[in-house]
Amino acid sequence: MSTSTLTPSKTKLHSYWRSSCSWRVRISLAYKQLPYEYVPVNLLKSEQVSSEFAALNPNCRVPTLEIDGHVLHQSGAILEYLEETHPSPALLPKDAFARAQVRNLCGIIGCDIQPIQNLAVMKRSAANLPESEQLAARMAWSKEWIERGFDVLERELVKTAGTYCVGDSITLADIYLEPQVYNANRFKVNMEKYPTIVRIVEKLAEHPAFHAAHPSQQPDATE
Amino acid sequence: MSTSTLTPSKTKLHSYWRSSCSWRVRISLAYKQLPYEYVPVNLLKSEQVSSEFAALNPNCRVPTLEIDGHVLHQSGAILEYLEETHPSPALLPKDAFARAQVRNLCGIIGCDIQPIQNLAVMKRSAANLPESEQLAARMAWSKEWIERGFDVLERELVKTAGTYCVGDSITLADIYLEPQVYNANRFKVNMEKYPTIVRIVEKLAEHPAFHAAHPSQQPDATE
Repeated sequence: MSTSTLTPSKTKLHSYWRSSCSWRVRISLAYKQLPYEYVPVNLLKSEQVSSEFAALNPNCRVPTLEIDGHVLHQSGAILEYLEETHPSPALLPKDAFARAQVRNLCGIIGCDIQPIQNLAVMKRSAANLPESEQLAARMAWSKEWIERGFDVLERELVKTAGTYCVGDSITLADIYLEPQVYNANRFKVNMEKYPTIVRIVEKLAEHPAFHAAHPSQQPDATE
Repeated sequence: MSTSTLTPSKTKLHSYWRSSCSWRVRISLAYKQLPYEYVPVNLLKSEQVSSEFAALNPNCRVPTLEIDGHVLHQSGAILEYLEETHPSPALLPKDAFARAQVRNLCGIIGCDIQPIQNLAVMKRSAANLPESEQLAARMAWSKEWIERGFDVLERELVKTAGTYCVGDSITLADIYLEPQVYNANRFKVNMEKYPTIVRIVEKLAEHPAFHAAHPSQQPDATE
């Protein structure tokens, strides 16, 4: 990450409509009512590995957020930054244990599920197989890791959830949950096993910030 | 995570000597000089999936920390909790952008590298291959993901590092770095490509907290 020497300019989110990590940041920005310019990065055209984009983010990933004269990477780091610099409306509870509960759920999704079912890892997981078997193997790979994670998540949510993942206020955990359920549906996970997850996500869909951040509402959406 | 109804008792860390996520928490506890009881969980004997352990952590993973009458999971959530409840000595800078730099590095290791080279994922990555090819394929898998991540990390550290990962104070980023370098060595990554990473880790090894938390110093170490 680098610090610009220029005057802080407009907030810019480098995003891909279907990227679940970009989606997390879009929800926080919308929830906190922070205006931003949407800069599409087409992952299918490998725009994230262009030298121009690599100069902005050596990890060649979205989201990348230009804000307050800085360039920020990694959705988790960005969400905590937004929380610290724009604490209201809050996406973390005040109590330390409740915050740990929220971050535990974020970790289950953000470390144990999403990175493994991510496009690059999924592709690589089937690379040793004959080409005719690769598509099915990839789908099975991602479905399996999402189910493994959702089995855990459902058990945790039974203990922590109120209206939302932790109690009755929207938190970072909800921001991680909705994109992951979208991916679960893409990989044909049977969601009937996860009634608490389904209930929460249905409720989240009613919120204007979650609506505004949805992939279908982005300028680069193709479906 | 659950709240015990009993009086808060002794802090207990459920850990496996070689688990890099447990190692992160051990460093923080040592750095903040918080005494704790070490409870070994032998992952090679699948003790983490016992019904007793699953009751403590439905994710069946280490680290699991019993502290202040609570049970905490996920190393990232635990580290932030320790930071919030025992802020001194600090493992995060005060400045919001510097904190984002630290958490970006934590994310590169904690989301993009470690979960993918993790034992279960590594094993599964080669499960479709003939048994005679599995060991080599697993090793190649983990080595490849660590190298991909370290290529990025080295470029980021050139910008952020002083004596340590971000400036001249030890932060959470250093806590993530040391265990990941240990794994890199296990998977025979050529560390000559990463002079900044090597320099920082050599410096960290001199610190008593990093020494105390090292796998070789744990009661369940077998090597």
